[in-house]
Amino acid sequence: MSLDPKRTIAELKELRALTCDEHGAQRVAFTPMWVMTRAWLREKLAGLPIETHVDAAGNFWATLRGESDQALLIGGHMDSVPNGGWLDGCLNVMAGVEVLRRINAQYGGKPPITIHLVDWADEEGARFGKSLFGSSACSGKLDMNEARKLKDKAGVSLPDALKGVGVDFERVKECGVELKHAAAYLELHIEQGPVLLDLDLPLGAVLGTFGVERHAITFFGQAAHSGSTPMNRRKDAFLAAGKMSQEIYRIAERNGGVCTIGSCTTKPGIVTSVVEECRITLDQRHLEVQGLARMLAEAKEASERFAVEGNVRVGWERLWQIEPRPFHPALIELCDAAIKETCGKSHRLPSGPLHDAAETSGAGVPTVMMFVQSLHGISHNKIEDTKEEHLELCVRAFDQLATKAMAWVMRL
Amino acid sequence: MSLDPKRTIAELKELRALTCDEHGAQRVAFTPMWVMTRAWLREKLAGLPIETHVDAAGNFWATLRGESDQALLIGGHMDSVPNGGWLDGCLNVMAGVEVLRRINAQYGGKPPITIHLVDWADEEGARFGKSLFGSSACSGKLDMNEARKLKDKAGVSLPDALKGVGVDFERVKECGVELKHAAAYLELHIEQGPVLLDLDLPLGAVLGTFGVERHAITFFGQAAHSGSTPMNRRKDAFLAAGKMSQEIYRIAERNGGVCTIGSCTTKPGIVTSVVEECRITLDQRHLEVQGLARMLAEAKEASERFAVEGNVRVGWERLWQIEPRPFHPALIELCDAAIKETCGKSHRLPSGPLHDAAETSGAGVPTVMMFVQSLHGISHNKIEDTKEEHLELCVRAFDQLATKAMAWVMRL
Repeated sequence: MSLDPKRTIAELKELRALTCDEHGAQRVAFTPMWVMTRAWLREKLAGLPIETHVDAAGNFWATLRGESDQALLIGGHMDSVPNGGWLDGCLNVMAGVEVLRRINAQYGGKPPITIHLVDWADEEGARFGKSLFGSSACSGKLDMNEARKLKDKAGVSLPDALKGVGVDFERVKECGVELKHAAAYLELHIEQGPVLLDLDLPLGAVLGTFGVERHAITFFGQAAHSGSTPMNRRKDAFLAAGKMSQEIYRIAERNGGVCTIGSCTTKPGIVTSVVEECRITLDQRHLEVQGLARMLAEAKEASERFAVEGNVRVGWERLWQIEPRPFHPALIELCDAAIKETCGKSHRLPSGPLHDAAETSGAGVPTVMMFVQSLHGISHNKIEDTKEEHLELCVRAFDQLATKAMAWVMRL
Repeated sequence: MSLDPKRTIAELKELRALTCDEHGAQRVAFTPMWVMTRAWLREKLAGLPIETHVDAAGNFWATLRGESDQALLIGGHMDSVPNGGWLDGCLNVMAGVEVLRRINAQYGGKPPITIHLVDWADEEGARFGKSLFGSSACSGKLDMNEARKLKDKAGVSLPDALKGVGVDFERVKECGVELKHAAAYLELHIEQGPVLLDLDLPLGAVLGTFGVERHAITFFGQAAHSGSTPMNRRKDAFLAAGKMSQEIYRIAERNGGVCTIGSCTTKPGIVTSVVEECRITLDQRHLEVQGLARMLAEAKEASERFAVEGNVRVGWERLWQIEPRPFHPALIELCDAAIKETCGKSHRLPSGPLHDAAETSGAGVPTVMMFVQSLHGISHNKIEDTKEEHLELCVRAFDQLATKAMAWVMRL
């Protein structure tokens, strides 16, 4: 039985019919719809000589035992945000199912190394506001004290919700054992941005997930009457904040990352007064620790310079941070090669959003991701889509990558 | 009986004791405190051979009949904002009372021309959000349809509040007759900004009140993920708005006016998204019609340029406008001369805030104002203050100006 990418597309459409309504995909983690989705996934795997189990964090594993315990992992997530896209997460899993079928057929049920397909639990974090739950439990990086306190909108705690699906919160990190023999981790995903669309390329090799520095920056000036205060006497908090709007583009360009000012609020915020206090949020992302640190330092330096220029004060408050998770150089090469062999041209790009692959990489498992073009460059939305020919190409290229990665693991 | 500026200061302190609490002055128009203030003012005028009356709009007039009907008007307002300063408005009236006493004494009760002292009703507009009520009724520029609908926070309409103090709203413009013989109008006021403070000068001659153009400017971009959207693909509404923050300083400097962005709001306004929609308010003020029009045109041009640069759209919405009210050149000269004779050095400056003088000027009455230094450059606040020596100087200089203006009127 050879690889059949059209079957993957048909299965994805079947899943869409089952789990999407007119607003989009509704496979939110730990809900009845998500439980049903997992049952559907088990059906699709029936007939393969595999073992399945759910680990201590609720992640679902399908294992095709090989001659060696050394394992190649293929991962994805069946959960979605509310009103999500039809491909985000499940494309990864269903392509993995097809690759598993091909490997099983090729090696008569006993490949040289072990193959695991994993459906991570609650990648999206839609209900509790904390993404990568299952994979961060597995990597050991989950902050237990923070997670223990998480509640959904109805006031249900994460530990209580987990109990409902048979998971004991206090023991979730025990699933780290699953990575014991992991030699490589592969993940396919729809790009959640427009880079491949702009380049008119179907596929790209992902360099890693961005590290993030997220801050609130507040400029403190002085309220003053808009009519009676000469321009050179003003302590205008909005002037300093406004300068940041352009500066972040220079910082991003100089350092090769991205920077976003997502919100701006002003006090007193009335038409007849110079702005006394202006608060902006700054989100900075970079693939390298040093690059991220440099972008942050440059933004701080610029904010202080603008504060001095405008005779105002500036204060910074960290909202969140995560370090960059660069993928494995050798696997990136293999991914690039698999793409080139499949469709002639590849492109290497970082991932802005986080993925479960960030956690496997953080746990020390050699990791790489492959992106397929998104038609509107948009995700977490029912209009998320990818051309069918690109879906076929991505299953083929991902399968090629699996072949190359198995060979690479065997040479280790 | 010669001019006694110390008496003016003593009377202002007496008024402060009567009408200010720990939060500041509480002489809001049409309230019992304001009615009491007027009664106190009548007491201060007792003993002078004057006629008094309240006109159709509730303005209070004290008239010292002269040999000619040609009249010199001296104006101010006893009303304050809630928690206001102790000098704003009443300094003008009380200095006028002192000038009236001096003229009466000098001419034995019969000056060559008629002198009117006017206490305008509801200059501040604190209760109904519409300033210059009494003077705009007198100038004929009050918008009756707009004013008829005004309500205070308790839902009381302006017409009903006026009824309570004996004023028939539908007849307020009949007070225009008061200006029939008006040949000149003089007003003293505490500066509501820091210009004289910065120059270390006690007094200044006012060139006129600024015209105002007030707009909301909205930039329309596109929301996009802060991690997955390359910088050069963004349609960032905040970037365009931020550029305006600096541009308005260049526009103000080039044209000699003032520009203020007083508020900024962002949508969706979250840390992980490029700003889709950014709305700022722009307040522009200039002493000349052409200058104001140029500043507005330049701001529009700049906003459109920034929109094109950033691949966003821009929309403008006018919130309010008023034309500049330049004062009378000959009277500005006289004011300047009076100041120089009193304290050696003068300075000419425009007024950012509006004053009743804007209405007399708009009605065609030759008008000028004199400013006295404000210690903190701040008004509409209980910390508003002026050095006592400057208060004395302003009464003296204002009296000098009255003498010069009388002579000027007689030469007409």
